[in-house]
Parts: sequence; structure tokens; C-alpha cells
Amino acid sequence: MWGGRFAAGPAAIMTEINASIRFDQKLYRQDIRGSKAHCAMLVRQGLISAAEGKKIQGGLDTILREIEAGKFKIDPALEDIHMHVEARLSDLIGKPAGRLHTARSRNDQVATDFRLWVRDAIDKIDAGLKDLQLTLLRRAEDYADTVMPGFTHLQAAQPVTFGHHLMAYVEMVGRDRSRLNDARARLNESPLGAAALAGTSLPIDRDSTAKELGFARPMANSLDAVADRDYALEFLSAASICAVHLSRLAEEIVIWTSAQFRFVSLSDAFTTGSSIMPQKRNPDAAELVRGKVGRIVGSLNALLITMKGLPMTYGKDMQEDKEPTFDAVENLELCIAATAGMIADLKANKPRMQDAAGEGYTTATDLADWCVRKLDMPFRQAHHVAGSLVRLAETQDKPLEALTLAEMQSVEKRISKDVFAVLGVQNSVKSRVSYGGTAPANVKKQVARWRKLLDAEKLAGKKKTRDKA
Amino acid sequence: MWGGRFAAGPAAIMTEINASIRFDQKLYRQDIRGSKAHCAMLVRQGLISAAEGKKIQGGLDTILREIEAGKFKIDPALEDIHMHVEARLSDLIGKPAGRLHTARSRNDQVATDFRLWVRDAIDKIDAGLKDLQLTLLRRAEDYADTVMPGFTHLQAAQPVTFGHHLMAYVEMVGRDRSRLNDARARLNESPLGAAALAGTSLPIDRDSTAKELGFARPMANSLDAVADRDYALEFLSAASICAVHLSRLAEEIVIWTSAQFRFVSLSDAFTTGSSIMPQKRNPDAAELVRGKVGRIVGSLNALLITMKGLPMTYGKDMQEDKEPTFDAVENLELCIAATAGMIADLKANKPRMQDAAGEGYTTATDLADWCVRKLDMPFRQAHHVAGSLVRLAETQDKPLEALTLAEMQSVEKRISKDVFAVLGVQNSVKSRVSYGGTAPANVKKQVARWRKLLDAEKLAGKKKTRDKA
Amino acid sequence: MWGGRFAAGPAAIMTEINASIRFDQKLYRQDIRGSKAHCAMLVRQGLISAAEGKKIQGGLDTILREIEAGKFKIDPALEDIHMHVEARLSDLIGKPAGRLHTARSRNDQVATDFRLWVRDAIDKIDAGLKDLQLTLLRRAEDYADTVMPGFTHLQAAQPVTFGHHLMAYVEMVGRDRSRLNDARARLNESPLGAAALAGTSLPIDRDSTAKELGFARPMANSLDAVADRDYALEFLSAASICAVHLSRLAEEIVIWTSAQFRFVSLSDAFTTGSSIMPQKRNPDAAELVRGKVGRIVGSLNALLITMKGLPMTYGKDMQEDKEPTFDAVENLELCIAATAGMIADLKANKPRMQDAAGEGYTTATDLADWCVRKLDMPFRQAHHVAGSLVRLAETQDKPLEALTLAEMQSVEKRISKDVFAVLGVQNSVKSRVSYGGTAPANVKKQVARWRKLLDAEKLAGKKKTRDKA
Amino acid sequence: MWGGRFAAGPAAIMTEINASIRFDQKLYRQDIRGSKAHCAMLVRQGLISAAEGKKIQGGLDTILREIEAGKFKIDPALEDIHMHVEARLSDLIGKPAGRLHTARSRNDQVATDFRLWVRDAIDKIDAGLKDLQLTLLRRAEDYADTVMPGFTHLQAAQPVTFGHHLMAYVEMVGRDRSRLNDARARLNESPLGAAALAGTSLPIDRDSTAKELGFARPMANSLDAVADRDYALEFLSAASICAVHLSRLAEEIVIWTSAQFRFVSLSDAFTTGSSIMPQKRNPDAAELVRGKVGRIVGSLNALLITMKGLPMTYGKDMQEDKEPTFDAVENLELCIAATAGMIADLKANKPRMQDAAGEGYTTATDLADWCVRKLDMPFRQAHHVAGSLVRLAETQDKPLEALTLAEMQSVEKRISKDVFAVLGVQNSVKSRVSYGGTAPANVKKQVARWRKLLDAEKLAGKKKTRDKA
Repeated sequence: MWGGRFAAGPAAIMTEINASIRFDQKLYRQDIRGSKAHCAMLVRQGLISAAEGKKIQGGLDTILREIEAGKFKIDPALEDIHMHVEARLSDLIGKPAGRLHTARSRNDQVATDFRLWVRDAIDKIDAGLKDLQLTLLRRAEDYADTVMPGFTHLQAAQPVTFGHHLMAYVEMVGRDRSRLNDARARLNESPLGAAALAGTSLPIDRDSTAKELGFARPMANSLDAVADRDYALEFLSAASICAVHLSRLAEEIVIWTSAQFRFVSLSDAFTTGSSIMPQKRNPDAAELVRGKVGRIVGSLNALLITMKGLPMTYGKDMQEDKEPTFDAVENLELCIAATAGMIADLKANKPRMQDAAGEGYTTATDLADWCVRKLDMPFRQAHHVAGSLVRLAETQDKPLEALTLAEMQSVEKRISKDVFAVLGVQNSVKSRVSYGGTAPANVKKQVARWRKLLDAEKLAGKKKTRDKA
Repeated sequence: MWGGRFAAGPAAIMTEINASIRFDQKLYRQDIRGSKAHCAMLVRQGLISAAEGKKIQGGLDTILREIEAGKFKIDPALEDIHMHVEARLSDLIGKPAGRLHTARSRNDQVATDFRLWVRDAIDKIDAGLKDLQLTLLRRAEDYADTVMPGFTHLQAAQPVTFGHHLMAYVEMVGRDRSRLNDARARLNESPLGAAALAGTSLPIDRDSTAKELGFARPMANSLDAVADRDYALEFLSAASICAVHLSRLAEEIVIWTSAQFRFVSLSDAFTTGSSIMPQKRNPDAAELVRGKVGRIVGSLNALLITMKGLPMTYGKDMQEDKEPTFDAVENLELCIAATAGMIADLKANKPRMQDAAGEGYTTATDLADWCVRKLDMPFRQAHHVAGSLVRLAETQDKPLEALTLAEMQSVEKRISKDVFAVLGVQNSVKSRVSYGGTAPANVKKQVARWRKLLDAEKLAGKKKTRDKA
Repeated sequence: MWGGRFAAGPAAIMTEINASIRFDQKLYRQDIRGSKAHCAMLVRQGLISAAEGKKIQGGLDTILREIEAGKFKIDPALEDIHMHVEARLSDLIGKPAGRLHTARSRNDQVATDFRLWVRDAIDKIDAGLKDLQLTLLRRAEDYADTVMPGFTHLQAAQPVTFGHHLMAYVEMVGRDRSRLNDARARLNESPLGAAALAGTSLPIDRDSTAKELGFARPMANSLDAVADRDYALEFLSAASICAVHLSRLAEEIVIWTSAQFRFVSLSDAFTTGSSIMPQKRNPDAAELVRGKVGRIVGSLNALLITMKGLPMTYGKDMQEDKEPTFDAVENLELCIAATAGMIADLKANKPRMQDAAGEGYTTATDLADWCVRKLDMPFRQAHHVAGSLVRLAETQDKPLEALTLAEMQSVEKRISKDVFAVLGVQNSVKSRVSYGGTAPANVKKQVARWRKLLDAEKLAGKKKTRDKA
Repeated sequence: MWGGRFAAGPAAIMTEINASIRFDQKLYRQDIRGSKAHCAMLVRQGLISAAEGKKIQGGLDTILREIEAGKFKIDPALEDIHMHVEARLSDLIGKPAGRLHTARSRNDQVATDFRLWVRDAIDKIDAGLKDLQLTLLRRAEDYADTVMPGFTHLQAAQPVTFGHHLMAYVEMVGRDRSRLNDARARLNESPLGAAALAGTSLPIDRDSTAKELGFARPMANSLDAVADRDYALEFLSAASICAVHLSRLAEEIVIWTSAQFRFVSLSDAFTTGSSIMPQKRNPDAAELVRGKVGRIVGSLNALLITMKGLPMTYGKDMQEDKEPTFDAVENLELCIAATAGMIADLKANKPRMQDAAGEGYTTATDLADWCVRKLDMPFRQAHHVAGSLVRLAETQDKPLEALTLAEMQSVEKRISKDVFAVLGVQNSVKSRVSYGGTAPANVKKQVARWRKLLDAEKLAGKKKTRDKA
């Protein structure tokens, strides 16, 4: 390709370290799409003839079909996907192939391809996350009234509903999607036409290629266009945060399915057995979701390190942008799908959850709040009263609600029998009606709110889809 | 504080590992602001009396003044800033202090304080980045016509202008700011009122506290409100990407100030000498900016790891959210200020830059483009012609423009003397007028566009400022 | 300090970003120790007079006393600890102070100081880890016979003893210590005498300073001596791996102290209460140990990033080596001490552990092994038999040992009543006598082996201590 | 495989996330080797018959040949390499295949395989690093007398020799190898026989399998044996530190081959051209070595995160140990080979280096040292004298050695004409004869010392090789 001036061929190790075709073939669809848009613009601007343009478009369509049919030959000597397409185009249509590279360099070409790829990946992941939200919503509705312990420090703190717990993840995933969509909007500018790094003297029309590729606008600085990879870093950041969210739910599933918790069970579809311990039902999928956060954060870290301290503009270091991004996308998609699968699959053990919710004096706060509300007691004093009553009940090894009124009054004489109304876990959760609180009625309202939001997306989504055609 | 039930005191090592007052005292302003808003709401809702509310507000104002005057005593036994304020309030106003904690837990309190702090930090960093943009704009204008080599692989590729180079960073910083502002909008929801984790049965008004604290709305799920730290992770991600951008400019300054490059010089204000080598002028500030990307990415990584796999809701692990965030904010602010300082300080060595721009056949692409434009040659063929001419010139150890017309025609006979017009570096940069290209006229237009954008922010900014009052 | 040639003072931001005295004052002891050794060598080599040497030594001793008494004044204008000591020495003894810097630069001085500091830190951490091992040994002995479930995937797999479980950590910590000691040996070379970077023409004796500072030898290449920080990276790696080990034990403590597991309890000394939930006993120390792995790995990552791609030799980026190292040391020490504290403090709930050990058909493998041993059955077939019996028992909702012989023989007719001997959890653990297996007798042997190893260290330790004098 | 109890098949997503055969097929050689050793032991212990043993051994040999001949079929339904080998063995020899799994579980099997694989990887990398050392030594000898600037802050500080500079990397690589070999020794214990996690009641001989597999001893705790991956973490740490070292040399090559430095050139074998800029010679291999440090550190980070907070013993998360390790090994090998290739290939531009060494008053320290040595001046005063002379020379825009004696004496009257002997760069480097200093004689001695050390390894290596048979 740059043969003219180079006498000797590259050393074997150089070929091996340098070639990217092994992984960048993933970009073929984006590469061809970008080339078609560029070609159409060159024709419109009179930089190549309509006839040449037609040949190029036809050749590119042929190549796309060949690749998708698995008939495209990969030759390690042609180091990347761009050269493969270029070489094949030349085979297919001869001389006009050379015109396609007018006013374009591999630098802006690869930046365009990779942006398109990351944008497509965001759209796929966003769709997966939406599906996860819908699954969570459905199960939150199933379990809107199911009482379980709300934990802090893995110690039962206050009763909550399982539906409310699941809705917490709907919120987190909602922010994950919002983060991805912000990243999408920010990356959605076209580097095409930046050429090698300085722009070009040829009369190109960058607005039209940007539009054709679904970009909001061309990038305003040619050096920036070929040199930055912040869009990949931002995507990897959003992916890492999302993976952390999923790892938390995965940890909960692992804990909840343990014999000691037995809060939920997974079917055979999401557990495995053991080669030596026939009785095991291992929550492998949950563990893998938890474990894969490592490689996703590792990929973010990898690219941050690679980009650190690189002078402008393109450096070959930047070829290392793709593999971590590809790996993160593939694994995050798996994690999302596996999580949605487990959530859809899991069956809550309601009696067990409810019993656990009542253990450990979890309604002590309800008692304290009752003192505030009914006795107009300052909270700190109410807290002290509740603590003393817990100590009393604990000494006798019984729950708070099993204390007699007399026992209660021995601590605080103004306590009346009304207090027992707040000490059961069902009453406790029902009473937490403050906005965002765990009351079943709240959970149902939140489910409805989110359903409406997600429905609204469908309409909006249709517009966005046109970008991806 | 939780004395009632705990007989023995915590082990000394427990106190040491557990106490956060050493670092979380930074939150004092946010803590007091949050308490004041909470108190006002309690009064409005009739949960405490107006008289109590007044005493609490007065006490909190006193505490704020004491802290800002350096007269507030830190007692390691009171483990965090929240307990310090609470204890001092109790000293100052007695019993009513206990009412402040009605319908609030340390869990939602700390989540509120930290969100407010991160929001304030984003605003400060955003202001610093805007200042950096203004500085870059000013210098881009100074050097809009200054020709330098545009590099790929640290090899001169094509001539560009120094102004254009600086404008690439204006774009990057622009995206950094946009990223921070998206993070700000996403975090700007109020966790206050989530209480320990389940909400409360007391009739609080979360909308009003949200509004008073400048939040857009209360968070919709109480578990999520106390359990997530994605806002800190997102801030740290944006900070890391920004730090990577700054590290690239810092690397360039280090390279450019080397004796071999001498593209720019820094004054004494931004260099240091050596204790043993009296002749040195070391670009320490640039090296520190480059080096500090390590700790900022390290902080992001730290918090991602800490949050990995934590079951709902609050775990004490999450106390580890603050120090990495504080450290990243402090160091990113330093990096931004030092970068702005260096950019304002640096003096370009124009003759040296221009000479370097012309070395290495950097206008070979101009020659190829000329063949495309004037001879209607397919680009790949034009590229081959240019390559052959470079080889010819190289053999004679002279620049491209020193080839005679006859020599040129020996390679491609259709070449005419017009070609010489594109071979000088000044002509080269002037010709790159495609949108985003390096032509001086483009640079000036971009400077003007950005000036306008930044001016528009001033007006918009006034509104935002009210949040922070 | 480098005043001669610098007209203007550094910009304020430069001072702020550049000064290291805020954190590098931690190196004072190492700095003075290094200077004393250097001074003694200069006298021996006749490079300074004995009288001058005596004054310098006296001055340095005074400074050490002043610092340790808290009477040393820090002046932000003197950017680091080296300049502080130098300036104070000059105050104290006048002109001879200037002789101390003969044949030494800040580059080799700081490299020496930091190596000594990291070496001291390794010794302190190693002592802490040894203490943790001794604590684990003691508790392993306490619980050598206590049966608990051995988990894979947090599912009970086979019965093990709690003592065996604790001994697993003795092994891990053993490797952590071995790793630290390898790091210590590798870093234990003296950079002193490398001067700025090239060595010196003055007739110094590097062997003697190396020896005096407890180093095994002087470093063989002056550039390497001032430019590398791999010893800090290696320390941080070892610290990170150790922190991961501790995080696993911490996670277990959090899980084990949950109301659902109740395998162990911690006393008030290692738990905290809650401001709003009076019944809580939160395992804060365990959570902090688990969470702090984030910042330790973050520090490793930070320094790896900082060192990436730095050309030889010293760059100011390398000033960023200290804070992550200091932070990792401080926090790892806390984690080790807190872990040892919790292990010493915890009380196992033996009946609960034993019951849990028997749930879930954990002796199915014993049954399969019995078929291999007694019926000479291929393992895969024995595994199938055991699986079928588990299924049978599960249908009837009873444990394996509650199956009748007839029921067992319905699956495999050769099964005899001997089989019941292996189905109880006590019998199961007793039978696992293969080397490294969980049998109580094995555990006791391992405790004895480790006691002997740790005792042997005491003698060896005395020699090592002399380095540190 | 665990068919008995599981009614429904795993969900498709479960298969996809769970299967490891895609990557763990890399372990086939270690897996078969481990099985052969285990089988031989079972025969020796009478746990299986000699005839069965022979069939198993023959079957395993056949499988090895099939795999190496590319004739082994991968079936995604058999999730990992262990099941593939097991299933094929059963096809080949029928029932006796089932006996191989006596007293072994996949947990200890995979731990054994992976340790063997990491050990082999360390040996390959160590060999590559040794080759790199030999290459560096050869070039250090070539350039033992070649003067170049020694840099701090990328500013010329003092003259050094290029040979000395290259020898700094011999030292770093020496420590990298030492680190890897310590890791190798520490990992070299056998987990085989730990079975699922608790050991076994069958009378196995773990010493003999350990010996046969080249392990120093069996691991002493069965839980630890199946649960820890610290050996992979330690390897990845050593790999990361090594990659950082290589990234520094790579950065230097990028800088040195820039048109502004021109200190060295690379041949066509290690550079590439550009598709649009025919004159470029890009140091791609160096950039990739610099960039790949990202993914190697990313892999370390990934596995640290995955292992964080996992309770004992095996969790499926740990399946994520292999891909980052495989990727790090492959890429580090590439980086080492490419670096050795570039070092062998590069040609130093001696005149250019020597000129650069003399610019910037790099012998100012020599002048100061001269004042110490000849005039018995305190160093700080000598430093001041040298600084003043530099300032004087700089004002007149000439080098130090061009000052007249009179001019020199105007600053310090005792200066004599002897001083000029130390001001040339050749004299400067020759004078730095302190141990570790840059004098050409020193460089040659160090080359000889290292040659001898590396020769000695050859003999020692023969013994080690036997492990790997």
C-alpha cells in the first residue's frame, strides 16, 4: 500500500504486532456505510463522475453481501478492514476504486467507522437495558406487597417490599440508559472529511456526509476529529458504572439463593450442578455477571492508560482502542441479558422473606417514629426509648410486639396500646408512604410511572431508528 | 450516640478505621445547608414548632460561623461531621436539637451532603475549564497564522497552524464540560427524606426540601437514594477523561520545550531549575499535569472497585467514596489551573515551528491533492506520483519545491508549474478550507464561534448561580 | 535554591502544584539517616574534613530531635523535606552545611529516602501480617473440630472444619508475606551516589554508604537508580493482592454475621449501631476492610499510569509516587490490624454451623467416594448413584442419612449398611485425611507446622533488625 | 454431566455466558499432562488397575495427538476443555474413562491446569526477556563510547553514553525477570488432590503427582488450593511492571526517531508508511508497545476486581481469570519481541547525539565538581559559581568552554586553565567513573558482568527444563 518508498518488507514480528484485521473486521458494516456516504458526496460535489460513483456503490454493495454471506477472504497481509475493502473493491471494479479515497484518509475513515460502531453498540445495549427495566417492572408488580428485610450492612434494618427493592434497580438502570444516551449524543458528530489531520483543499461537503450517516453535524476541528477517543472512554465509563449496578444485583442473587437465606430460587435454566457434589444448584450466571465487572472496568482502565499522554494527533497506540471496547460491549450485553433472564426466572420465597423481615427488631424505628408522632417526643429521645425497649425484648428473647403494654410503659409511661399497630412488618411497610417510600401503593404508582415513560420511548424511538438504516 | 445497647466501647483500631471526621469535615457547608432546609420543611409540615425551628436555624448559623472562623473543635470520638454538628447544636440550643433528626437518618443525610458537594465541585471545575477555554481561544487567535508541523506518530505529517492545534483542545475541553454538566443534571435529585432506607411514615414534603437545595426533584426510590454512588463514579469518569485530555497537552508542552524541539518556551513562572545542573529549565508543571492523570484515574478505579458487588443498601464500604472524590477534585482543579497558566505563559518560536513544518515532505499530500484536482487523477494514482517525487527529492537531499519542473515531469508529464503554488507550507495551510480544516481563516471563525458560545453562557450562568446560594 | 538564573518567581499555581512538603515530610527520618551515611562516607574518603563531618552529624541529630519533638517549622516556600533539612542545617551550622551536597543530587537522595521508607513500610506490614497469622492460628486451634459447610458458589458443598477454613487464610497471608519479602530483597539496593543521573567524578565509596544503610549493594547503573520506581509498584502490587485476600475474609465476616447465617458474632468492639435503627449491630470494620481494597488497588493503578511512557530519567511526574504509596501503606496497615482484631474477637456459633454443614446433601460426595472405595465403582458411575439417591431423599424432603437401606438398595443393590458411617458431617470431615484435607487431625498438624515456622522467624528476625537501627 | 437431577436444560443465554471452551481450550496440554500424572498415581495407589491405567494413558495420548493435529472437535455443549477431554476419552476407551475422576474434582483440576499454564507462560516470557537483555548488551557494547545527553524532564542534564542508557534497561529487565521467577517459585505448588475443596478420604499420594508435574510440593490447605488465584495476580503484576518499563523505552524510540531529535533511525522493518503522506516513516511498533501497557494493566485490574470480596472457595466469577491472563501473556510476548527487534534494528546518529549532548550547558555540574575537587569549595558555593558562569555564557550565546579564563576568573578568581579539561562532553563522561557511573569503561565492565550472569543461567537452565518435559 505505501510500497513506493519502502524497500524491505516489515519484520514478521512487526506484521504480527501491527495488523488489526483480526479484530477490526467487526467494523465492516460501518466501513462500507461510511464509504458509500463519502462516495455519494464526491459525486454530488463533482469530485468523481456519476458513473464512477455508481461502480463504487455497486462494488461496495457486493462486498457487503460477500462478507455477510461468509464469502469474503481475509488476508493477513492486508493489515486492516479498510485495506481489505479497498483491495476487494479494486478487484471488483478496477481503477475507479482509487477515486474513493479522494479527500479521505484512513485517519478520518477509522474515526468515522469506530464512532458509528460505538453508536450502534450503545443502541443495542440501551435496548437490552430497556428490556431489563420492563422485566424488573413486571416482577416488581408481582412482588409489590411482598415484605422482606431492607438491609444496611447486610443486617436487617427495616421491612421493605421486594417490589420496592426491584424498583431501585429500575432507577439505576434508568440512569445508566440516560448516561449512555448522553454519550451517544456527544459522540454523534462526524469526523469524516478531517482527512489525515488538516482537512483538505478539495471542495467536499461534510454536512451532507454527516447527515447521511445520521450524525448531528461535522466535527469542528480536524485535528480533534482524528485524535480523540473520548467517546469510547465515555462509553466504557457508562458501561463500567452499569456493570457495577448489575454486580450488586448479582451479589444479592448469590446471597439470596444461599441455603441460609433462601429468599429466592432460580430454576434449572439459570443454575448448574457440580461434577462431584450432586446436590448443588449453583447460581453461575449471577456469579459471572458479578465477575465480569472486572473485565469491563479493566477495559475502561486499559483505554484510559493507552490514551494518557499521547501527543496530537493519531498515534498507532490508538489502534488499541477497539479490543477493549469490543470486549466490554460483548460482555455487558451478556450480563444484561443474563440479569434479565434471572429476574424473569426467579421465584421469591414469600414466607421466608416475611419472617426474616420481622426478625432483628426491624420495626424499632417505627416505634421511635410513633413516639415522635403521637407523644411529640424529640427524635433523639424517641430513639433512646426504642433502643431501651429493644434491649428489654432482647433480654427476654422475644420480638418487640410480644412485649406487654406494662413492660413498654416501664420504659416510657405515655406509651399506649395504639403502638402495637406499627410493630408488625406489614403495617410498617404500609405506613411508609412518603414519596419514594416502600409502601406497596407507592411501588404500584412507580411501576405505572415507569411503564408510561417506557411506552413514550417507543414513539420517540421510531425517529431514532432512521439513523441506523 | 447509639449508646443504649452497647456495653463495651469500640476497640481502638475500630475507632481508627471507622472515623471519617478527618476527611468528611469538608462537607460542613453542605451538611448545614441540608439541615437548614430539612428544619424549615419540618416547621412547614408542623412536625416541629416554629420556635424550635428558629432555635435550630440559629444554632446551625452559629456553627457555620464557628467553622468558617476556625473556632470549631474537632473531637475524634465524634466520628463524622454530622455528629459534630449535631453535638454542637445540642450544646448550643439543648433539647430542640434532638428534633432536627425527625424523619431523617444519617443515610439520607450523608447522601444529600455528598451530592451537594459533588455538584459544587462540578461547578468549580466547570468554571476552571471555561477559563482554560478562554485562554486557549486567546492564544489560538495569537497564533492563528503560525505554521507548525501537524504530527501523526510524532512524525511531521502536514503543515497546520498552531492556532488550529490549540483549538483542538477547546473542542476537547468543550466536551469535558458538556460531560460534567450532564453528570450534574443527572445527580441533581434529592435523596433527602429517604430516611434510613425505607422512607418514613411522617408527613414530610420532599419536594420542598429538594427545591430549597436546588435539586430538580426528589429521588423516586428510597433504597436507591441511600445506596447508589453512581453520581460520584460518573463525576470521576468525566474527571478522568478530562485529565487524559490535559495529559496530552502536557506531554506536548514537555516535548515542545525540549532543546530538540524548541517550539515553545515557558517563562520562569512555570519552570524550575535544578539543584545540581544550573542550566536546567524544567517544565515541572506540565509533567505534574501529565503525572496526575494517574491519581485521578486511580480514584475512579478505587470507587468502582469499592462499589462492586455491594448488596443493597448502605454498606460502610461506601464511606470510602469521599477521599478519592476529594482527591480527584483537588488535583483536577490544580491541573486545569496549571494548564491555563502554562498556555497563557507560553511563547511560540515561530521561525522554528515554520521550518519544522516544511521538513519531511509534509506537503506531499498537497501535491497529491493537486494531481486529483488539476489532472483529474484517481487519488491512489496521485498518491503514487507524490510518493515517487518525494523519493526523487530525498535522493537529492532537497525539499519537494526545489525539484525542477523537468524533474517533476519525468515522473508525471502533465505536471505544470502551477504545482509550485501548493508546495510551500503557508500555501498548504491556507488551502485547507474544508469545514474543520486548518486554514487560518477557519481558525479565526472557530475562535469567534466559541467566543459567542461562551458569552451566551454568562447569561445562562446567572440562573444556575441561584442554586448555589 | 536555584536562584542564580531565575529572575521571576514561580507563579502561585506553580508553587501549589509543585511543592511536595505537605506529604514528603513523612520521609524525614530516612532523609536524615541517608544524609548521615553520606556525610560519614565523605569524611572517610577525605572529601570533607572530620571537623566538618562532625558538625554536619551534630546538626542532623539536632534536626531529627526537633522534628520528633514537633518543633520543626515547615515553610511552604521550601518545597520539599530535603530542602527543609538542608536549610535548617545551614541555620544551625553555617557553611559546612553546603559540603553535605558534595557528590549527591536530589535525584539520588530522594530515590534513597523513598527506598528506605518503602523498606520500613514492608517491615511494619510484614510484622502486622505475622501477627494476623498468629491470631488465625490460635483461632484455628480453637475451632479445629468445629464443623461448618464448605462453600462453592456460596452453596454448601461439603462439610469442612472452621479451623481448616481459617488455616486457608494463614496460607494466603503466608504468600503475601513471602511476596513482600521478595519485594524487599529486590529493592534493597542503594541508589546513593548515582548523583543527578550520571554518577560523579569525585572519589566516593558507594559500597560503604550502601552497607551503612542496610542495603545489600549499590545499584549498578546510575540512570536506572534515579529513574525507576518499580520497587514502589511491586510493593503496591503485593499490597493489592494482600488487600484482595483480606477483602474475601471481610466478605465472609459480613455474610457470617448476617441474621440469616449467624455463623459468627462480633462483640461491641467491632460493630457499630445505627442512629435510627437501635437494634443494629453492623460489622463496619469488615465492610471497611472490604471497601479499602478499592483505594489500595487504585493506588497501584495510579502509579502504573503515572510511570507509563516516561522517558529516562527523572521526570517531575515521579513526584506522584509518594502519596499513593503512603495511602496504601496506611490503609493496608489498618485493614490488617482490623482483621486481626475481628478474628481474635469473633465467636463461632457451633451448633448453627454444624446444622448448616449437614443441610443440602453435603455428604453426597462421601457417598460417591464410598461406592468407589467399597464397591470398586468407577467414579462417574458412583457420582450418578449418589445423584439419584439425593434426588430420592429430596423428594421425601429428608436428609441422605434418613434414607432406609432398602431405599438405597433400590438405586444400587450392592450398598450395605456400612454406608451410613460416612453420611454424618462429623464422620465426613474426619475421613478427609489426604494431605491438605480438612480432617481435624490435619488442621492441628498444620497449626503446629506454622507455629514452628513462625517461631523460627524470631531468630532470623533479630539479624534483620540490625538493618533498621 | 450433572444430568441426574436437572430436568430442564439451561437457558440459551446461560449457555452463552457460562461456557468457557472458547478460551480454555488453550489449557489442553496442561490438562492432559495433569490427567496423566493423576492416573499414574491412582495406579500406584491401587485405586485403579494397571490395565485401566494403561487404557487411560493411551487414550489421553491419542487426544493430545488429535488436538495438535487439529483434528479434535469442539462442541459448544461441552462447556470446557476438561469435559471435552473427558467425553472424548470415554468415546475412545469406554468405561475406564470414568475411573480417571476418582479423587479429583474440576476445582482442583482447573487450578492445576492453570498453574501449569501460567508457569509455562512465565518460562516463555523469561526467555524472551533474556533475549532482550542479550540484544541490549550487544547494542550497549556497540555504543559504549557514544555520547548523548542524559535527560531529566526531557531537558538535557549531563552527558552520558548511549551504551550506559541501554544498560539501564538491562537492569530493569533483570528485575522484571527476577520478579517473574519469584512468582514462578511461589506458584509452583500442586493443588491436585484438594478435590472439590475438602480433600478426600481416598488414599491418594499428592507428593507423587506434585513431583511428576514439576511442582515443588503439594499445597497444604485444600480450600486455599481451589480458591486462590494470587499466582495469576502476581504474574499480571510482574507483567504490568515489565510493560511499564517497555513503554518507557518505546516512548524514547518514538521521541528519538522524530525529525526534531533524529537520535536514532529504524529501518523499514520496524516502520510503516502512510496512505496519504508518502514521506512518513512511522515508528508503529514502538507506539504499539507503548499503547499495549494499557491492556496489560487493564488485565491486572480486571482480575483484582473479579477476585475482590469473593467468599471461599470457588465461585464461578473465577472463570474470569483466564482471558485477561491469556491476553496479557500474548501481548507482553509481542511487546518483548518487538522491543528486541527494534533495539537490534536501530541505528544511532552519533554526531547528532554528541552535538545534543553538548548543548544546554550540560557540563555545568562538571565545572561545579571541579571547584569542589580542586578548590576545596563547599558544593553549594561551587553550584553557585557554576550557575553564574552559565548565566555569563548564556548572555554571550556561547558554550561554557568558550568562556575565556579571564571571564571565568571574573566570577571566581581561583579558577585555573585546568578547568577546560572537564568542560567537553567526552571528558565529562570519561570522568564519571564512580560505581554505576556513565564512563565508557564502566559500561564495558557492566556488559561483561551481565554476559557472565546470563551465561551462568544456561547451565542452571538445563535443570529447570526438566520440569517442563
